[in-house]
Amino acid sequence: MAERFYCGVDFGGTNIKAGVVRAADRMLLGQVSVETERQGGPEHVIGQIILAAGQAVAKAGLRMDQVAGIGIGSPGPLSHKRGEVYQTSNLPGWRCEPVAARVAEATGRPTTLENDGNAAAWGEFWAGAGRDVDSLVFLTLGTGIGGGVILEGRLVRGGRENGAELGHMIVQAGGRPCSCGQAGCLETYASAYKTAQRFVEALEAGEPSVLAGRHRAGLPITSKEIAEAVAGGDRLACRIWDETCYYLAVACVSIARVINPDRVLLAGGMIAAGERLLLSPVREKFAEQNWKLRCEGLVLEPEIAFASLGNNAGVIGAAGAVELAIEEGTLANAE
Amino acid sequence: MAERFYCGVDFGGTNIKAGVVRAADRMLLGQVSVETERQGGPEHVIGQIILAAGQAVAKAGLRMDQVAGIGIGSPGPLSHKRGEVYQTSNLPGWRCEPVAARVAEATGRPTTLENDGNAAAWGEFWAGAGRDVDSLVFLTLGTGIGGGVILEGRLVRGGRENGAELGHMIVQAGGRPCSCGQAGCLETYASAYKTAQRFVEALEAGEPSVLAGRHRAGLPITSKEIAEAVAGGDRLACRIWDETCYYLAVACVSIARVINPDRVLLAGGMIAAGERLLLSPVREKFAEQNWKLRCEGLVLEPEIAFASLGNNAGVIGAAGAVELAIEEGTLANAE
Repeated sequence: MAERFYCGVDFGGTNIKAGVVRAADRMLLGQVSVETERQGGPEHVIGQIILAAGQAVAKAGLRMDQVAGIGIGSPGPLSHKRGEVYQTSNLPGWRCEPVAARVAEATGRPTTLENDGNAAAWGEFWAGAGRDVDSLVFLTLGTGIGGGVILEGRLVRGGRENGAELGHMIVQAGGRPCSCGQAGCLETYASAYKTAQRFVEALEAGEPSVLAGRHRAGLPITSKEIAEAVAGGDRLACRIWDETCYYLAVACVSIARVINPDRVLLAGGMIAAGERLLLSPVREKFAEQNWKLRCEGLVLEPEIAFASLGNNAGVIGAAGAVELAIEEGTLANAE
Repeated sequence: MAERFYCGVDFGGTNIKAGVVRAADRMLLGQVSVETERQGGPEHVIGQIILAAGQAVAKAGLRMDQVAGIGIGSPGPLSHKRGEVYQTSNLPGWRCEPVAARVAEATGRPTTLENDGNAAAWGEFWAGAGRDVDSLVFLTLGTGIGGGVILEGRLVRGGRENGAELGHMIVQAGGRPCSCGQAGCLETYASAYKTAQRFVEALEAGEPSVLAGRHRAGLPITSKEIAEAVAGGDRLACRIWDETCYYLAVACVSIARVINPDRVLLAGGMIAAGERLLLSPVREKFAEQNWKLRCEGLVLEPEIAFASLGNNAGVIGAAGAVELAIEEGTLANAE
């Protein structure tokens, strides 16, 4: 029997990463990255996606017709059903672009489109830290906070699609303004970028910190520097970081109340801070903020853990997503 | 072919309501109510459930063996899979009571147990204001706020069960303390009971209102009196009511971000306030608080509407829930 392979594409505002996953062991084979060149507009960018997919397939030592399908993880809003990417803040000039159809036409392979957070969540479920559970919620802590939801082994796209935008759950009504137009979104407090922004705001308001000199020198302060300052006991860094962990915990409580998954996986660059600085405090604050209903001998709450696929979750999950779409019969464009 | 009938039981701290639903047209036939007599302890209360089911079947002109199954909607936490009700704040002395098994033994009929919010949500989906959609979220505004979630035609019970406790989503981190042990839960702001409580707090802090005399006279103030005062333009009533609508809208935004259903249905006694006083303000505030991503010609957001089955949603939905459990194969106790 011939082995089955899927091509996954993780399409972002700066780079397009692609790879091939072997279905049997979910091993990632060829990996490539090309520039998005978003200034070229939708047609050009779709060409770059096709280029990346072709390079990955070649690098894996395959011909395109040996690939069972192509999955594309993309920033939203988008329609999985229609295979279209709508306007996105990162991609000027886009509106209702039929990405899946174009890629399918150019490659001759069945192609599916998923939200990038959904794809990465599916990657962890299919091949990573969620392989052993039936339901999970995935939160990726980067510039924003992306999300994905899997329930009873099914990817939850939302009744009107574009669900699982977990960074835009409101955790503080009337709170910090968000670029999405809402106020008090989780990501305004707890993304890597916004954590750094809150830190810099406090520095500029005159609070002392070991990082004050760095900031005065015009050097960037990211969540990485803040985590290092937390490890060193810097008071301001500890306060800001603590707030980030608190809001992540609050979001986990709301996630538990709405869909109560087996596991919540934290992902993204920020988890480099590690178990002691990030995971343990989030777990502790979750226990504090969570309701006090208890049933002897029963675990009623999700486990909070780190994702395991790192930057590959998007590519692996996009590859898995086309297997899923074929199985579900939700391919926007069958051959 | 014989007609199919299901018995539904809506089990609460004060009363146990039961009825029979005809599968063909989802018509509610016999309706009865017995007292819970919760002071009698779990065995006695389970006896009352069996009594109510038997009375409803008789009142519908049927024998118990003509009923295809019995569904019970119960306050949680509980396990649908195990058919057990855990400790509940309304039912002293309960812990891991095998309600479904006892009722199945006594009646000889397959019996299923669902969270009461889930059952009522399923009722609206099966026979009410959600018949025409694939996904909905249900919020019942009473003493607390109960909830239910249906996605792609499937009842979402949560990976660890006890999901859809939507009244305990945190909408205001660090906000008003909730009896569940959390802070800032939706229900601490927006349930009928807590709306009245916030109003009375403001009265007692000296704010003027047309209802001040009523309160001084020791008469109760409920959301009904407040809605009447809102209709009359009372300033305090308007402010408190407005806050309730605001928090409901904020919760709808978070619901849209997590699972983006086709529809959010509001239910419970409070919807007697009507479209002008309740539904329209919640819709307006939802539009204000919701993100500003728009895609021409596409509806990306859930519709907010009133439920249609009123107090019967629980009984009808519990009846529907046993049909569902039989179809899904999730009956805790087959005969």
